Amino acid sequence: MKITIIGGGSWATAIIKILSEGNVHIKWWMRNSEDVEYIKKLHHNKNYLSSVEIHPSKVKPYTNLKEALRDTEWIVLAVPAAFLSDALKSINKNHLQGKKVISAIKGMIPATNQLVTDWIEQTYEVPAHDIGVIAGPCHAEEVALEKHSYLTIASPNLVLANDFANLLRCRFVSTSALADLYGVEYSAVMKNIVALACGITHGLGGGDNFQAVMVSNAMQEICRVVDVIDPMKRDLSASAYLGDLLVTAYSQFSRNRTFGNMVGRGYSVKAAQLEMNMVAEGYYAVKCIYEMLKGYEIDIPITNFTYQILYQNAPLKKEFEDLKEKLK
Amino acid sequence: MKITIIGGGSWATAIIKILSEGNVHIKWWMRNSEDVEYIKKLHHNKNYLSSVEIHPSKVKPYTNLKEALRDTEWIVLAVPAAFLSDALKSINKNHLQGKKVISAIKGMIPATNQLVTDWIEQTYEVPAHDIGVIAGPCHAEEVALEKHSYLTIASPNLVLANDFANLLRCRFVSTSALADLYGVEYSAVMKNIVALACGITHGLGGGDNFQAVMVSNAMQEICRVVDVIDPMKRDLSASAYLGDLLVTAYSQFSRNRTFGNMVGRGYSVKAAQLEMNMVAEGYYAVKCIYEMLKGYEIDIPITNFTYQILYQNAPLKKEFEDLKEKLK
Repeated sequence: MKITIIGGGSWATAIIKILSEGNVHIKWWMRNSEDVEYIKKLHHNKNYLSSVEIHPSKVKPYTNLKEALRDTEWIVLAVPAAFLSDALKSINKNHLQGKKVISAIKGMIPATNQLVTDWIEQTYEVPAHDIGVIAGPCHAEEVALEKHSYLTIASPNLVLANDFANLLRCRFVSTSALADLYGVEYSAVMKNIVALACGITHGLGGGDNFQAVMVSNAMQEICRVVDVIDPMKRDLSASAYLGDLLVTAYSQFSRNRTFGNMVGRGYSVKAAQLEMNMVAEGYYAVKCIYEMLKGYEIDIPITNFTYQILYQNAPLKKEFEDLKEKLK
Repeated sequence: MKITIIGGGSWATAIIKILSEGNVHIKWWMRNSEDVEYIKKLHHNKNYLSSVEIHPSKVKPYTNLKEALRDTEWIVLAVPAAFLSDALKSINKNHLQGKKVISAIKGMIPATNQLVTDWIEQTYEVPAHDIGVIAGPCHAEEVALEKHSYLTIASPNLVLANDFANLLRCRFVSTSALADLYGVEYSAVMKNIVALACGITHGLGGGDNFQAVMVSNAMQEICRVVDVIDPMKRDLSASAYLGDLLVTAYSQFSRNRTFGNMVGRGYSVKAAQLEMNMVAEGYYAVKCIYEMLKGYEIDIPITNFTYQILYQNAPLKKEFEDLKEKLK
């Protein structure tokens, strides 16, 4: 099976480790030629999950995206949403024609407030039945350690979802398929907003009791949002929704949570961003979701709280008091 | 308002702290006369949440239960379920007549596999409309620190639930009322089983990814159980259900999780109990739930896993592998 992975970060590296358990040919595109040389020479990714062995018989790194896409069946997108457009700037719709595109990105395209899959469908004319997403709950770091994990592939095309789920299944990863692309993708986007809110309120002195209430209320908020956008019967306590939220909201390593915590402790948004030197997907996502839902009559207290603090410089303590009143 | 609290542990102490924010007369029953003398003299509970001030104008400690129950309107039960029958042995139905009974216990009566509220109703002939439960998510330790927390009172009698919710509401506690007594009480019992399972699998090497999947699957298991026992429309992502599960499953301080973790690491059940020197409610609950559901066709992999390991001495690794297969 021929697969191209786009992106050189820890999630891309984890997906490569998983896929390498099977019989695959992987073309791995990354921006930096030094990183490519390092992998070719030393069979490890220097900067992310550096303990993972990259098997040269299965994985070939590239810096030329067109070459990396040639003769491939599956494409996995694994760069931050905000950088996706730039990563793909050298290609056009012809390079994706007839290929199946799986997004492993949990964010939205900031310029257009679009889901990654919608943007791919519209910009590159990839038909919806050739598109899917990978959802967690899955810390890349635990994949590196071969801790047993579960992945869900969601696509309007269940055949595609099952095919890719089969590719990913291995001795330390269980997989399943769902037809609910929008539900899974919006949940994945919103969990990063929730992680930001968890961080902010933790920074403001909220405890475990408060966080448990916030995550419960967040599930209800996510439920309202996906019901407005794409009404269908779905069980949000499945791993791809609730599990993904939990692993992020309760992770000490979540960038979103850490970023939020710094803001809650009094760092300005800019200072926190400089200090982190990493992308917190939720920072872009909260603006997208907030703006996207402006026209709707929908109760989204956690999104509003996070947006007001990160984009409107709203007073932290007052917003926290208001949020306490709104949750239940 | 006259209230009797039965039990001298940390949860009882936390509830007294919360109620003392209002205009109340509290009679506090505990077994040990030395503890009563300590509180009378030093205005703190020596053994639990010892930082909490016990206001002598509002709270009077007793060792005589009949005296503690005289002239009271509300009774709050806050002893481990396994010891409740013994704690109440000096009284009969006449002592509870006309009083409202709120259970703050999250366990089942081991001798009869009954919910605490069912047992109270049957044994002391307290009518159902005079009975309720307090549900979290609420670590007592965070109440002591006045971290903002949320409590839900559930009762078939919504007037009673709202009345007691009003008594508990204070500057650091928000409250709400639900009519779903069984749903809330069974969820509270089962979350302790889940915390045991989280501990066991953590001890066996399961990571955060696995725990997120287990908690998601646990919500589905709880949903199936309460639907079998008392079918009604309920939103299990409310704080009283999901929140309570989260605060326990993700707590480093949960006795159930700690106990499970020891067993997962290879301690025998007996050795873990001796080492802990505390009651893990889930240990009794899992047997009750397992036996109660024997006649039903219902899929309860997490309950079964925990029961097999704690009561049937089943091989840990094999049970873990089976559980991995069953979750999704």
